[in-house]
Amino acid sequence: MVTSSTTILSDLGTQLIIPVCAIIGIIFSLVQWYLVSKVKLSLDSKSEGGENKNVFNESLIEEEEGVNDHNVVKKCADIQNAISEGATSFLFTEYQYVGVFMVAFAVLIFVFLGSVKGFSTSTQQCTYDTTKQCKPALFTAVFSTISFILGAITSVISGFLGMKIATYANARTTLEARKGVGKAFIVAFRSGAVMGFLLAANGLLVLYITINLFKIYYGDDWEGLFEAITGYGLGGSSMALFGRVGGGIYTKAADVGADLVGKVERNIPEDDPRNPAVIADNVGDNVGDIAGMGSDLFGSYAESSCAALVVASISSFGNTHDFTAMMYPLLISSVGILVCLLTTLFATDFFEVKTVKEIEPALKNQLIISTFLMTLGIALISWIALPYSFTIFNFGVQKEVKNWELFLCVSVGLWAGLIIGFITEYYTSNAYSPVRDVADSCRTGAATNVIFGLALGYKSVIIPIFAIAISIFVSFSFAAMYGVAVAALGMLSTIATGLAIDAYGPISDNAGGIAEMAGMSHRIRERTDALDAAGNTTAAIGKGFAIGSAALVSLALFGAFVSRAEITTVDVLTPKVFIGLLVGAMLPYWFSAMTMKSVGSAALKMVEEVRRQFNTIPGIMEGTAKPDYATCVKISTDASIKEMIPPGALVMLTPLIVGIFFGVETLSGVLAGSLVSGVQIAISASNTGGAWDNAKKYIEAGASEHARTLGPKGSDPHKAAVIGDTVGDPLKDTSGPSLNILIKLMAVESLVFAPFFATHGGLLFKIF
Amino acid sequence: MVTSSTTILSDLGTQLIIPVCAIIGIIFSLVQWYLVSKVKLSLDSKSEGGENKNVFNESLIEEEEGVNDHNVVKKCADIQNAISEGATSFLFTEYQYVGVFMVAFAVLIFVFLGSVKGFSTSTQQCTYDTTKQCKPALFTAVFSTISFILGAITSVISGFLGMKIATYANARTTLEARKGVGKAFIVAFRSGAVMGFLLAANGLLVLYITINLFKIYYGDDWEGLFEAITGYGLGGSSMALFGRVGGGIYTKAADVGADLVGKVERNIPEDDPRNPAVIADNVGDNVGDIAGMGSDLFGSYAESSCAALVVASISSFGNTHDFTAMMYPLLISSVGILVCLLTTLFATDFFEVKTVKEIEPALKNQLIISTFLMTLGIALISWIALPYSFTIFNFGVQKEVKNWELFLCVSVGLWAGLIIGFITEYYTSNAYSPVRDVADSCRTGAATNVIFGLALGYKSVIIPIFAIAISIFVSFSFAAMYGVAVAALGMLSTIATGLAIDAYGPISDNAGGIAEMAGMSHRIRERTDALDAAGNTTAAIGKGFAIGSAALVSLALFGAFVSRAEITTVDVLTPKVFIGLLVGAMLPYWFSAMTMKSVGSAALKMVEEVRRQFNTIPGIMEGTAKPDYATCVKISTDASIKEMIPPGALVMLTPLIVGIFFGVETLSGVLAGSLVSGVQIAISASNTGGAWDNAKKYIEAGASEHARTLGPKGSDPHKAAVIGDTVGDPLKDTSGPSLNILIKLMAVESLVFAPFFATHGGLLFKIF
Repeated sequence: MVTSSTTILSDLGTQLIIPVCAIIGIIFSLVQWYLVSKVKLSLDSKSEGGENKNVFNESLIEEEEGVNDHNVVKKCADIQNAISEGATSFLFTEYQYVGVFMVAFAVLIFVFLGSVKGFSTSTQQCTYDTTKQCKPALFTAVFSTISFILGAITSVISGFLGMKIATYANARTTLEARKGVGKAFIVAFRSGAVMGFLLAANGLLVLYITINLFKIYYGDDWEGLFEAITGYGLGGSSMALFGRVGGGIYTKAADVGADLVGKVERNIPEDDPRNPAVIADNVGDNVGDIAGMGSDLFGSYAESSCAALVVASISSFGNTHDFTAMMYPLLISSVGILVCLLTTLFATDFFEVKTVKEIEPALKNQLIISTFLMTLGIALISWIALPYSFTIFNFGVQKEVKNWELFLCVSVGLWAGLIIGFITEYYTSNAYSPVRDVADSCRTGAATNVIFGLALGYKSVIIPIFAIAISIFVSFSFAAMYGVAVAALGMLSTIATGLAIDAYGPISDNAGGIAEMAGMSHRIRERTDALDAAGNTTAAIGKGFAIGSAALVSLALFGAFVSRAEITTVDVLTPKVFIGLLVGAMLPYWFSAMTMKSVGSAALKMVEEVRRQFNTIPGIMEGTAKPDYATCVKISTDASIKEMIPPGALVMLTPLIVGIFFGVETLSGVLAGSLVSGVQIAISASNTGGAWDNAKKYIEAGASEHARTLGPKGSDPHKAAVIGDTVGDPLKDTSGPSLNILIKLMAVESLVFAPFFATHGGLLFKIF
Repeated sequence: MVTSSTTILSDLGTQLIIPVCAIIGIIFSLVQWYLVSKVKLSLDSKSEGGENKNVFNESLIEEEEGVNDHNVVKKCADIQNAISEGATSFLFTEYQYVGVFMVAFAVLIFVFLGSVKGFSTSTQQCTYDTTKQCKPALFTAVFSTISFILGAITSVISGFLGMKIATYANARTTLEARKGVGKAFIVAFRSGAVMGFLLAANGLLVLYITINLFKIYYGDDWEGLFEAITGYGLGGSSMALFGRVGGGIYTKAADVGADLVGKVERNIPEDDPRNPAVIADNVGDNVGDIAGMGSDLFGSYAESSCAALVVASISSFGNTHDFTAMMYPLLISSVGILVCLLTTLFATDFFEVKTVKEIEPALKNQLIISTFLMTLGIALISWIALPYSFTIFNFGVQKEVKNWELFLCVSVGLWAGLIIGFITEYYTSNAYSPVRDVADSCRTGAATNVIFGLALGYKSVIIPIFAIAISIFVSFSFAAMYGVAVAALGMLSTIATGLAIDAYGPISDNAGGIAEMAGMSHRIRERTDALDAAGNTTAAIGKGFAIGSAALVSLALFGAFVSRAEITTVDVLTPKVFIGLLVGAMLPYWFSAMTMKSVGSAALKMVEEVRRQFNTIPGIMEGTAKPDYATCVKISTDASIKEMIPPGALVMLTPLIVGIFFGVETLSGVLAGSLVSGVQIAISASNTGGAWDNAKKYIEAGASEHARTLGPKGSDPHKAAVIGDTVGDPLKDTSGPSLNILIKLMAVESLVFAPFFATHGGLLFKIF
């Protein structure tokens, strides 16, 4: 290995820092898990106060209540078991489907990439450094396939672990709420942190190990090495597609199905354990918002790392094999783990949440603190891990970049993420006028509510798009596609904190549901509701991050694709590119049409099953017989996975069809079109849905004079608000967030298959 | 003038054909007007049967009824007068605002374009043929300003005349409905034809005369001549912006305002003449769907002609001053008038509509017949008016084109229009399953209705986008931007027929309203309802045409802009272009957010005025005092014009700000982004709204077993359908169709100001 004296950090240091940081992250998340596990779900819960003395500060001012009620603990444990069983059942079925897909697609990758040089096993001239010999394309096909599988497995593990901890923490949060809102907050937040750190550290570690193992074979052929590594991003992202789309359809099908039979036909309350679909409903929250979001952000992380690496492999430090500079993206993520660790302590140890009012600021401070600290971290890494000056490959020409310029690239992404987060909060939190205006429009009925909600979503696109545009302009101008890739990494560098506050939301939501189901007192439900309300906003912020980073990531991947496909310009003024642009901009609409209708038909299947159980299982309504939760979960799983095949096929097949039949120019147009169009629909759909949800909650809570004039529950404005909320469900939980994956996945797939398309693609134009 | 022997048609022939065709069109429309005027609105209506003997076939099988009821005739005349007064009041106010804008913008054009060469009056080297001297930029600024004003005036006249004939024909259609559905159909259709032919012929004639007058000054400097002519398109389109957005806000504000006070608060029926806003509501239909659509399509026509001319001015026949070849776009339009004339006779003279079932096929046959005939017309013109082979300027290089290739370009646009029309019909007519599925989803409430409706709109985008993409690919590949421009002209070549069947819709709608208001019998209302139902579908088809042609036109204008700004590539892989693309794709969302909220606030103002009149005018509820219709019309006008300023400013200022501060590359990105994104939202918004409207009508009509299970009026599914319909109102009548203008206007504005931006633009990048 050639070392370079131009970076302050030695290669040995780099080889140590990355795994050490990843392991610290994993240990930290295990510690958090241990602390959460101290909340006992067994019947000796009385003793738990004493045990926890050193962990939780006991000075929280709120009165404890019902702490000694064994019956409640038993109920909570039962409900949690049911949710956990359901989650396992979902995962089991999902993995069967996913496994088949994974094998099939792995074969496809091997065959397509292997065929680029006719499955030849002889070495070939490198593409960029033509003086060197690179490894045969056949082996790059093999290694791409391996890294694809590794990415897919890591993504699956991320989703699985996230769901496990979430379904482990929800009842514990409920039980801690008996002691006060502060204690419940800490449990929920720590659980979120477990997921955040596990995912960030795990993703980093697997990528690091893979690179080092591949390097044993590739040696100095870094072009081939990092070409093969891009499979990791594709694997991560294609699993995320299943997670997001399937999970999104699942959760909304279960939600609607449970309500239509339970509430409307059988007249039993929401979240009643006698409803066979109620567990599926709660499982759905974990499937969609936890596992789906986890896989999604893991995918973004993996893809932006891969994009940065593949672009950097043909930079000056790539050509001179400067390992430390090359590992800059991974070093950023490593420092990110330490920064997030420190940030987490601000929420759990340095300060205490004592009252309801303090919850939202505590979560928002997490974002602000991590962003400030991370800016310093980026500066440090840019200083020690990069040569002062280097060149980056920019579509056929070399561009000179200074290390401080790269610092600015990463930072602009990081700060754009913060801005997007706050704007999303502004448009979806009922503390501000936009959501209140939407709530107010419910006075004149559901129609005005829908009109105002749609208008709010459209409007909420403006500032995030400017933030993304500025990040792109700055990073692109300074360091071409490498700049854009590291800007995406900057936005994702605080992913552990982002995921922690994001996962906190559905955990609190579930905790509230469990409190309802277990029949706990009004005060406890008020506490979990307060946690939940803050969670709604953080979920929206999380979606904002996911979309913003997806936009940057897909541009970076697009750039990497273009480089690998050896295109130097993507000229809108050519018919091939323009029709690609137009059709690409249409794809998010097609995809949304599919996913929105899927929610409808999946919900219908759930309705049938719930009706069947009520009609055939004796004693179910009396509570003497346990409903068959697992079948509902299976129905929801099967239906959602079946329904997700058409939209999934659209996303996975489009790059293949376009690339094979129309060639790389048209494919470039499709990628650019779907990116610029999809990001708008994704943001507006998520925010519209979030705003409707919180407008409904605003009316229900009746916390202000204005809100009380619209309520209470059951009033006409409230009914109008419920309609808006239901319309928003598929928008914010199914089609909106899935669009992130659409734009990223098409880009990374194109990148992986770029050599194949460049060699064998464009059949249609070749024939005519 | 240099003549060329390479075209079969002589220049003299061209100079004759164009004005003769235009004058034939005008005469034909006057004849139609005369025929409509034979239906008397005075009290001697008894004699009208005899007078009409030679004009209307009397063998229609439906029974005449109530023909001799003088009271009804009087009422209809009164209502029509009120609508006509209202329309005049609207026009009067609108023209005041528009006049100010026109003057201000004319000054801007003169100053900006004059400053390109520092207001110098000396001749300059031509841009493309550098061996020649061209007229000074200052004079091109003057002529551009003049043609801008001419375009604006022609657009205003088009809208005004359309509205006049529509408000002249509506009551006459109602009265003819007493004699049978066939007679009413003929009156409504003839009236639509008046508008269609007047607009097409007038637009052509003014353009033709302007070119000939400008040629006196410009002589052989065709570069300058057709550069100056582009102002005509800008003028037409900027007036269309006022028409569409203002009209859209107007009609929906009046509609909602009238309903909220009249139906909800005062409990008087819809379309009751005691409601002060009812006339504003009826005026609104004419303002939005007639005048707005007319200005919009006139704008498209003017712009595509200008785009074709400006591109052709630097082609081989432009350089050799072959007048006939140069006038190819105008010759296409001339033949279009003759073709449409013949087509119209199929609806009014060759065949007869005798039953309700025959209405929709008769209208659809118009589209099919005109498309077939026009294909022959295009072939003829391409054969006689073009050299067999010529070259077209294609972003820096010359491209050879054959005349049959250009025939294909025009034809592909024409046929793509037909396809878009039929797909639009499929997704918005309640004769097919998509709308019936939406109606069916009303069973489970408004939320599912909205979800299914949105999904339908998204889905309806797919085939039109492919049709547009194929047209672009074919025309772009054959003849670069000239091909795209003539493809747009092809789609618009049957504009007279398109507008006739389009204007037929709101006329029938008004006729139905007048029948209601005049208290005519159930049977007559059934007849007008049947006309109206067919009209809904044709209105949707018209919108499909408008959007499809707008997409082609703006691409052609974009191409012309790029040529004039002397850019040879618009490379997505440069930060300047990419951020333009991203922000451009966001603009339609911003614009839609504004227009949708505007409808809400304008409706609120109307509510206040209607309440005031009910409270302060004595005898209004008893029908003894006439309400103050004009004030409501004024409120609606003022509110809508005030509300349209922000979205109007967004559209008009964006190209100026981007061009001046960011330069032509970023502006190219913005144009491409708004085009590919806007066309999707426009199609989906129009179709979603149309589908909701017809789903509601499907339930109300109860014409099938399935429909009856959902109805009747007032049932829960019907209430859900009404909510969908109301949500769809601003989508289909305000934001959706206005987006056409957004994409066209930004492109034509950029084209007109291109020399200024190329010289003085991009300040921000020049500073840093």
